[in-house]
Amino acid sequence: MRAYDIIKKKRDNKELTKEEIDYFIDKYSNGEIPDYQASSFLMAIYLNKMNSKETTYLTEAMMKSGEIIDLSSINGIKVDKHSTGGVGDKTTIALAPIVSACGAPVAKMSGRGLGHTGGTLDKLESIPGFSVDLDSEKFIELVNSEKIAVCGQTSSIALADKKMYALRDVTATVENISLISSSIMCKKLASGADAILLDVKTGDGAFMKTLDDSFELAKAMVDIGCGMEKETIAIVTDMDEPLGYAVGNSLEVIEAIETLKGNGPKDFVLLCETLGAYMLVLSKVATDFEDGIKKVREVIENKKALEKLKTFIKNQGGNPDVVDDYSLFDKAKNTYLVKSQKDGYVNKIKAEDIGISAMILGAGRETKEDLLDLSAGIILNKKVGDYVKEGETIATIYYNKEDKLENSIKMILDAYFIEENKIDSKKLIYGVVTKDYIKKY
Amino acid sequence: MRAYDIIKKKRDNKELTKEEIDYFIDKYSNGEIPDYQASSFLMAIYLNKMNSKETTYLTEAMMKSGEIIDLSSINGIKVDKHSTGGVGDKTTIALAPIVSACGAPVAKMSGRGLGHTGGTLDKLESIPGFSVDLDSEKFIELVNSEKIAVCGQTSSIALADKKMYALRDVTATVENISLISSSIMCKKLASGADAILLDVKTGDGAFMKTLDDSFELAKAMVDIGCGMEKETIAIVTDMDEPLGYAVGNSLEVIEAIETLKGNGPKDFVLLCETLGAYMLVLSKVATDFEDGIKKVREVIENKKALEKLKTFIKNQGGNPDVVDDYSLFDKAKNTYLVKSQKDGYVNKIKAEDIGISAMILGAGRETKEDLLDLSAGIILNKKVGDYVKEGETIATIYYNKEDKLENSIKMILDAYFIEENKIDSKKLIYGVVTKDYIKKY
Repeated sequence: MRAYDIIKKKRDNKELTKEEIDYFIDKYSNGEIPDYQASSFLMAIYLNKMNSKETTYLTEAMMKSGEIIDLSSINGIKVDKHSTGGVGDKTTIALAPIVSACGAPVAKMSGRGLGHTGGTLDKLESIPGFSVDLDSEKFIELVNSEKIAVCGQTSSIALADKKMYALRDVTATVENISLISSSIMCKKLASGADAILLDVKTGDGAFMKTLDDSFELAKAMVDIGCGMEKETIAIVTDMDEPLGYAVGNSLEVIEAIETLKGNGPKDFVLLCETLGAYMLVLSKVATDFEDGIKKVREVIENKKALEKLKTFIKNQGGNPDVVDDYSLFDKAKNTYLVKSQKDGYVNKIKAEDIGISAMILGAGRETKEDLLDLSAGIILNKKVGDYVKEGETIATIYYNKEDKLENSIKMILDAYFIEENKIDSKKLIYGVVTKDYIKKY
Repeated sequence: MRAYDIIKKKRDNKELTKEEIDYFIDKYSNGEIPDYQASSFLMAIYLNKMNSKETTYLTEAMMKSGEIIDLSSINGIKVDKHSTGGVGDKTTIALAPIVSACGAPVAKMSGRGLGHTGGTLDKLESIPGFSVDLDSEKFIELVNSEKIAVCGQTSSIALADKKMYALRDVTATVENISLISSSIMCKKLASGADAILLDVKTGDGAFMKTLDDSFELAKAMVDIGCGMEKETIAIVTDMDEPLGYAVGNSLEVIEAIETLKGNGPKDFVLLCETLGAYMLVLSKVATDFEDGIKKVREVIENKKALEKLKTFIKNQGGNPDVVDDYSLFDKAKNTYLVKSQKDGYVNKIKAEDIGISAMILGAGRETKEDLLDLSAGIILNKKVGDYVKEGETIATIYYNKEDKLENSIKMILDAYFIEENKIDSKKLIYGVVTKDYIKKY
């Protein structure tokens, strides 16, 4: 077998065998196949596509290119929730305590943020003292005793994916359903969960900008997961405007805490309930979706989820008092109120622009090496559907870097579409994809 | 401008501008764009193709990536003849003296062989003492005084092409009309000729296996040449069976000499007449094709071409006596007669297999580093259309390497298709492509 012939076969739009894909990924991973052959292969895949069988083989090969985490010593069915990334997406911080409080084990390995979307680890680290550096023994012990732990994704899983993603990033071969879905799923499958719930974001602030592409990606990932015998469900949800009101690390943690206190933003609460219910179904803690919803609402109402969050913070070295006293978070030195320049309805808030605006302030990373300002960010005072008067505050900027303010204000003003006539409100949840059906709402 | 955006544009099947192509080739040539971006770009070009405008820009950019030879101090119209490569293609060795004897200047820069097709330089070096290492001063002096000189192509022309060809070779991006035509033409255009005659081979032993592809390549190259204001004509000729009887360096030189003595194989003589006539037309030595044919036949008949060959050999340090005494060539130690295993008509001789069989014996190079055995090769005793009896010799192997014989015999036997019924004879010349028309015979 030769790399050349495998490239040629995909170039000629023929179906690759498992052996061919295994060979290529294995040899690329260990450096025997050079980058220039891999990038040519990736462009051939990009343009000629892979079918569902090939995509599953690719995922499996990449999964096997690194460590495969063994969580079998954790009791219960471990469900991993993964979001394709959005602006203001603090879901894990509220959802993990909710699901855990309902009795399902939460053994979550998370990543850091890059670009206009934030990462769960960065958000958690805005809690004073909180550490995501758990060794696997401690991690498993915490999940078994308290049913909740979150740690950083080990860098030893799916090594081929890491190498290949860096290459795709500079060779214009990122936006392909097979390559995206296998890249996400190989890491999820290597992380040892028993079942997987995917939150596929769609719209301006998401990877997938159109609904069709989002459902296609959801379907591809469900096919891969189920093809590898892990029950997998995907929800397609809106990321046309940011989720909730808060964008920025500590600001988002506070919003998640408020949600567990029963004061969450409507859209964010709905998302937590939906994802939570499906996680409970997958972990067999709930009998069905409705039962799941009921259980989620219960643990918010009776504050069990809030208590679980405190335990979780304490277990990982953080100060649980932040839950009751937000002044314990680092505060940004300055705030700036962004005012509307006209009367009208907020018909659109471009999520990506809000994400980039927060990134510029220090809430996100432009390159992997950037240091974060965990207190910086944006609170949206108005969301889509709200009426606003000229001079009224639409957003509040929390910042330390004076020189970034002007650019950030400009981006926020450009992100808000304020118009005379109100448009129909958009959905938050667009549909569900399972092994057996695609249900669009 | 960024390499990434140029790759993405071609990936998305959009037309590239001259500036974009110039930028990519320039930066790739000087190492600022890495191989892995170039190979991704090449696969995008391969699959989405380039139009004629883009192909001309690409050619021009590659031409400018190295030295551009100035032949303006040579008197007369310099016509460069280029063949896309075939088995037994000793055309330049007979054609250069013919055209020169007719009064047209021949300033030929040639290459070496690789794979199953031979190179003119290697063939000439089988003449004892012959050197292709001429400095440009000596080269120009010889062409002005004697109207004939052949030297090695300088390695300083079309540097981007050299780098890119090596990359295409290992990334399955060779067989694309735009990439092939620009690669050939950038070198021709950098070599300083005033007009170009292309011999596009078609069939089993050629780069282009089908007639349609061959005409397409011919058209693409004529478009490039004429687009860059060099009169260019292409002839599409057969390479389904080897040209003439001889395959191997000194064997082919002897066949070329025999042709100048008036004893050439029918197909080879026809090709020399046709190409010679077009070269004379392009160099304005002949008034039209018929006049060209007449002049070519004249210099063969009156032995002026043969005398010119002797002068040519002498000028470049070779022993001109070889023309009259073939025993002065190095001889292979052994010969082996390959016998037919049945009665019937030779309906096909797979040129590529014959070429590879000769290469194995040492007549060709498998890799650039291989040393040649200039005396090794194959004489075809039977060609397509001939009747053969069981036990009759179909080919003679000239060899020094005992261990290669068996494999070579086997390949020759497999290359010959001997069948009961005779098929219609094939054409040698399939057509002519000029700026103004495509004429298919």
